[in-house]
Amino acid sequence: MSQTMIAAWEDLLVETTIQEIVQWYDLQRLQERYVTVIDADRLEEWPELFTEDGVYEIVPRENQELGLPVGIMHCFGRPMMRDRILSLRKANVYERHVYRHLTSGLELTTVDADTVDAESNYVVVQTLSDGESRIYQAGRYFDRVVRTADGWRYQRKRAIYDTSRVQTLLVTPV
Amino acid sequence: MSQTMIAAWEDLLVETTIQEIVQWYDLQRLQERYVTVIDADRLEEWPELFTEDGVYEIVPRENQELGLPVGIMHCFGRPMMRDRILSLRKANVYERHVYRHLTSGLELTTVDADTVDAESNYVVVQTLSDGESRIYQAGRYFDRVVRTADGWRYQRKRAIYDTSRVQTLLVTPV
Amino acid sequence: MSQTMIAAWEDLLVETTIQEIVQWYDLQRLQERYVTVIDADRLEEWPELFTEDGVYEIVPRENQELGLPVGIMHCFGRPMMRDRILSLRKANVYERHVYRHLTSGLELTTVDADTVDAESNYVVVQTLSDGESRIYQAGRYFDRVVRTADGWRYQRKRAIYDTSRVQTLLVTPV
Repeated sequence: MSQTMIAAWEDLLVETTIQEIVQWYDLQRLQERYVTVIDADRLEEWPELFTEDGVYEIVPRENQELGLPVGIMHCFGRPMMRDRILSLRKANVYERHVYRHLTSGLELTTVDADTVDAESNYVVVQTLSDGESRIYQAGRYFDRVVRTADGWRYQRKRAIYDTSRVQTLLVTPV
Repeated sequence: MSQTMIAAWEDLLVETTIQEIVQWYDLQRLQERYVTVIDADRLEEWPELFTEDGVYEIVPRENQELGLPVGIMHCFGRPMMRDRILSLRKANVYERHVYRHLTSGLELTTVDADTVDAESNYVVVQTLSDGESRIYQAGRYFDRVVRTADGWRYQRKRAIYDTSRVQTLLVTPV
Repeated sequence: MSQTMIAAWEDLLVETTIQEIVQWYDLQRLQERYVTVIDADRLEEWPELFTEDGVYEIVPRENQELGLPVGIMHCFGRPMMRDRILSLRKANVYERHVYRHLTSGLELTTVDADTVDAESNYVVVQTLSDGESRIYQAGRYFDRVVRTADGWRYQRKRAIYDTSRVQTLLVTPV
């Protein structure tokens, strides 16, 4: 690597460190994997994106703002997540649907070397059997992500949704 | 760093320079911060993402195409932006709503070492008090971004919107 | 570059290689360019994003799942794509519309050093002459991307759409 190249590098590193880009990239990819797993209906892989004791919650915005963290789905730890998926598979009472997640506005706050708080907007577009695609749910993820031996995993993922008219019976992860 | 690694680097740099990635990353993050500030209703921080003399405009596509840059919002400089936010806070006549911005298709054109023209699609999903989430506005941002002592800032941000049925009374930034 | 910096680098490289980030970046930018070309109605540039023998297809999800790859648009090679665009320009029978693509969830699978399979969600928001913006089509791209002398290009791009009510007369690329 030439001296010029190294100098250019060091200039850049004043503002944006490569560590920062690598971290952003890793968390961006985790999020892309997360939405892919749900949208491809590979829900059995969904708990693997959390730590063993990871917490997943879907909470309406009004409750969150009132300090009432009561939501329509609360999973504490991977075993409970797996149970949830098993129930969904067995129940089979819900109308066939396809989800497409869109995410934007990823914001990161470093907690410590191996812990990051991440937020991002999400909008889930749903297509039901009538073939029309509609906005199913809009909201924002509030996540705590930790570095594990297997890579970054969610220690907590909370989906705070804006939309009130959401299906509260047999809720699927968003 | 091993000789092999350095060689691999130099191969890569033929196509994509690290400077280019760092620049893209910085502008991507600026955009993510921009939409977060609006969606979290932290509008007081919104003028800080512009230069002191920055220009913000919301212009309908038809006007833009006819060469009539007359829009529904024009702010020249941070003081005017701050006034705008103060008015919005005081007026308080509009229905309570939540915005979620989605952006895609970020394209960059380098003007000079410290100036970049950036474009990107945006779609704002709005949830009103009836709890339904709808597409409020779709369009494209046309931005000039400059490097300042505080990082990259908008010298000009123009939101050219496709959707005609937008609220023109007490417009909020998009 | 200091020894500390090099050490920090080598630590990072255990998990995420710079090659991986550069590849992701290149494919992300290709996708952003792709949606920009369509949304800006610069359709004449659209075939240039494919290899000379590139294949472009739009296939409904039900057909794909039944193993019937019959879709509403099939282009084999750039000349056929150019013909398609010429027809669209001449026909001029369709209602004026604006597209805004949103994409998320880019997932990459390396095939070999110069070949990558890429998938991503897409949602196209359309604004017709009535000025309302609606979800026109939601789906997922399944792409094979190859490195050429001009950069990465699509060797195959297949848009598998969820939405049934799509216009099947004079289909435009998505």
